Amino acid sequence: MASIKNARHPFYEHCHTALNEIRQQGRYRTFTPLARLADRFPLYEEEGPALPEGREVVVWSTNDYLGMGVVPEVQEAAIAAIREHGVGAGGTRNIAGTSPLHTALEAELAALHGKEAGLLFVSGYVSNQASLQAILTSMPGWICFSDQLNHASMIAGIKGARGAQTVIFAHNDLADLEAKLAAAPAEAPKLIAFESVYSMDGDVSDIAGICALARKYNALTYLDEVHAVGLYGEEGGGIAQRDGVADEVDIIEGTLAKGFGVHGGYITASAGIVDFLRSTASGFIFTTSLPPSVVGAALVSVRKVRAEGWRREKMFERVNAFRARLRAAGVPFTMTPSHIVPVPIGDAELCKRICRRLLVEYGQYATPINYPTVPQGTERLRLTPGPFHTDEMMDEMVQALAHLLRQEGVMPPARQTENAA
Amino acid sequence: MASIKNARHPFYEHCHTALNEIRQQGRYRTFTPLARLADRFPLYEEEGPALPEGREVVVWSTNDYLGMGVVPEVQEAAIAAIREHGVGAGGTRNIAGTSPLHTALEAELAALHGKEAGLLFVSGYVSNQASLQAILTSMPGWICFSDQLNHASMIAGIKGARGAQTVIFAHNDLADLEAKLAAAPAEAPKLIAFESVYSMDGDVSDIAGICALARKYNALTYLDEVHAVGLYGEEGGGIAQRDGVADEVDIIEGTLAKGFGVHGGYITASAGIVDFLRSTASGFIFTTSLPPSVVGAALVSVRKVRAEGWRREKMFERVNAFRARLRAAGVPFTMTPSHIVPVPIGDAELCKRICRRLLVEYGQYATPINYPTVPQGTERLRLTPGPFHTDEMMDEMVQALAHLLRQEGVMPPARQTENAA
Repeated sequence: MASIKNARHPFYEHCHTALNEIRQQGRYRTFTPLARLADRFPLYEEEGPALPEGREVVVWSTNDYLGMGVVPEVQEAAIAAIREHGVGAGGTRNIAGTSPLHTALEAELAALHGKEAGLLFVSGYVSNQASLQAILTSMPGWICFSDQLNHASMIAGIKGARGAQTVIFAHNDLADLEAKLAAAPAEAPKLIAFESVYSMDGDVSDIAGICALARKYNALTYLDEVHAVGLYGEEGGGIAQRDGVADEVDIIEGTLAKGFGVHGGYITASAGIVDFLRSTASGFIFTTSLPPSVVGAALVSVRKVRAEGWRREKMFERVNAFRARLRAAGVPFTMTPSHIVPVPIGDAELCKRICRRLLVEYGQYATPINYPTVPQGTERLRLTPGPFHTDEMMDEMVQALAHLLRQEGVMPPARQTENAA
Repeated sequence: MASIKNARHPFYEHCHTALNEIRQQGRYRTFTPLARLADRFPLYEEEGPALPEGREVVVWSTNDYLGMGVVPEVQEAAIAAIREHGVGAGGTRNIAGTSPLHTALEAELAALHGKEAGLLFVSGYVSNQASLQAILTSMPGWICFSDQLNHASMIAGIKGARGAQTVIFAHNDLADLEAKLAAAPAEAPKLIAFESVYSMDGDVSDIAGICALARKYNALTYLDEVHAVGLYGEEGGGIAQRDGVADEVDIIEGTLAKGFGVHGGYITASAGIVDFLRSTASGFIFTTSLPPSVVGAALVSVRKVRAEGWRREKMFERVNAFRARLRAAGVPFTMTPSHIVPVPIGDAELCKRICRRLLVEYGQYATPINYPTVPQGTERLRLTPGPFHTDEMMDEMVQALAHLLRQEGVMPPARQTENAA
C-alpha cells in the first residue's frame, strides 16, 4: 500500500467523518459478490466470506427481469462479435467507434417505439443525464416539469441545465402538474419529464393523461421507460406501447440492461431531435461507444423480445404466484400495478440485517434498498420474481421471509393455531 | 415512420435550425460505419455506401492504441465470462451487479497505480464527471483549479458542482497555476484537476511540478491518465508512473477503453477516498455495473499490459517511423512528446473533405477532429500509429496524405526536382 504524501488535505478527514456518519445511520453499503450461473439462472454463487465456498443462492433482485442475458442466442451473438471485431469499440462514435451493429440496433429500437430514430448511450443513466441536459440548454427560458420521484439520472440532467427552471410536481399527480403548467408563462418552452414504471415503488404513470396536458400546454414529453421496456406492450415497447400512446410521447428513453438483459441505454424520437442530440450532447460525443459484443447481443435480444411474448407472460404469472404466497403467509408487501414487489421494512439497519440473514441462513438474496435510493424511513426489500423462479424457490423464500420478519418484529408473532398446524 | 402529434413544440424547429447552422459551418458529423477485423487489426471493413462492399481500410485513429482488444487471451476471457455468467451484469453494484471479477479488477488497478483502492465506472467520462462532482460538493468552499484544456468529462463534473468555485489556469502553465493558488484564500479546500497526456494536442503535463505546487498550497490533485495508461511507465501505469510521482497524486483516473482495449473507466486513490466516492457519487451508485465479460477481459488485459512491455516499445518505434516518413515527405505535423501525431488543417469543411478523400480514394481512415472537440480554426487530423501498422501501410498513408494535402492547398506544390524524381 502506498502512503499518500498529501494526506493532510482536509478531504481525507472529510471522507473519514462522512463514512462514519453513514455507518452510524446503518446505511454503509456492502456489495455482496455474486457470480451469476448462466445455465442455472436465477441461481448465483456467493463468493464472499459470508457463506461456505461456492454456496448457491437464489437471487430475487436482478434487473435482468426476463433472463435475456442468459439466453443462448444472445450469448452467442456477443461471442460472435468478440471473435469478429474484438472486445472494445476502440473509440468514440466519431473516432472509428461506429460499427454497422450500432446503426442496426438504433434502427431496431426506433422501430420498437414507433419513432423515426434512436441513439445509443453507454448507460441508461447517461442517456437521461446527457439528453435532458442538452435539451434544457438548447434554448433560453426552458421550464422543466419533473415528477417528484424521477430517477437520479434524470435529476442529474435537469440540474445540469443551469439556465433552465425546474418545477417539481407531486408524484403522478396530474392535477398538480396541470396547475403548475397553467401557472407558467404560455410562451416559455416546456418539458415534462417522467417515468412509466417507478422502480422503487412499482407504480405506473398515466402517460395518456400527461400527454393530454402536454398538448394542452404545448409541452414536450420525455418518458423514461427503463423498468418497462421488454416487459409491457405487445412487443415489449413499454407502458406507452401497452397503452397505445407511444406516438404521443416526444422522447422515449430506455435501457438495454434490464428487460433486454445486456448493457447500455438509448433514446428514441423524431429524426431531427435524435440528430440534434447526436450533435450536441456532451455525454454522447465524448465517450467510447458501446463494444460491438454488447451491441450485437442487444440486437438479438431486442428482436427476440419483440417476437416472443412468453417470457413476459410467464414473468407476470410468476409475480402473481409469488404475491399469492406472500399473502397466504401474511408477509406484508406493497401491491403494485407492475412486476415489482416491495416489502416495507422502514429502518436501514434492520433492512440490511434481514437481507444478511436471508443470505446467510437461507441462501436467498434480496438487495436492501436504503437511502439515498429511497427516502429515510421507507427502507425496503425490493423483489422481482422472474420467469425462472420456480414454485419451490418461492415456497422457500416466503417461508424464510415470514420467519425472519417475525423474529425481527416486522410481522406480528404467528398465532397459536398456525404454530400448531 | 410515426408522425409526432406534438411537433408544433418550438424544440422541433430549434433542432432543425441548429442542425442547419452546424451544416453551414461544415461541421455536421457523419459517422463512418467501420467493422473492425479482429484478426487483421488495424484493418477494418467500411460498410457505408462510400466504398465497394467489404472494402478494407487501414484505420489510423483508433484509441485501442496497443491493439489489446484483439489479443486472443483478452477475447477468450470475455467469451469465458459470457458463457459462465451471461452477457449483462443484471443490476447496479448494489443490486446483484458485483461479481468477484469486479472486485479483482479494482484491486489490480489499485496495484497498477500504487494506490490503496480502485473503483470502476461505466466509462472514463462518467468516472471523471461523477468523481469530480462528488468531491467538489463534499465540503463547502471548494476551489477547483482546472487546466484550460481539460477534457469535456472533467468540465462536466466540475460544472456540475454548483457550490464550488472554478479557477481555470492556462494550459500546462505552472506559473499561472501558482499565481492563482497563491491568490486563493489559504483555508479554502483546493483541488487541481489536470491530465497527463492531452489527447488532441499530444502534449504532456509536468506532474511533479504540479504536485509540488499542490503540496505548497495544500491542494488535492486529480489526474486524468486516460491517454497514458497502458502506454507509459514500466508497467503501463501512465506518465505518473514513468516520472516516478504516482504516490504524489491523490486521485489517478484512467480508462479501460484505450490502452487496455476494452471498455469502462476507473479511479484509484486512498481507501477512504474510494470508499467515500463509492458511497456518494451518483453516477456510480445509480447505474448498472459493467458486464462480467468486459471486466473479465479488462482484468486479463491489464495483467498482460503490466507484464509485457513489447507492445509499448513497438508502438513508440512505429510512431517514430511514421514521423520520419511524414518529415521526409514534407507533410506538416505537430511534433509532440507523446504517441499522438496531429496534422493541422485549420478548417472544418476542408478537414472533413480530406478525411473523406483519404477513405474513398486511398482506403485510409483518419477521423476529422473539428469543433467542439477542438477550438474552431484548429481543425486537424489526429493520427495514432500503433504496433501493428506496417512499413507498407505507412508508405501508402504518407503518400496519400502528401498528394491530398498538396491538391487541397494545405502543403505547397511539389518542387520540380521532386516531381522529376
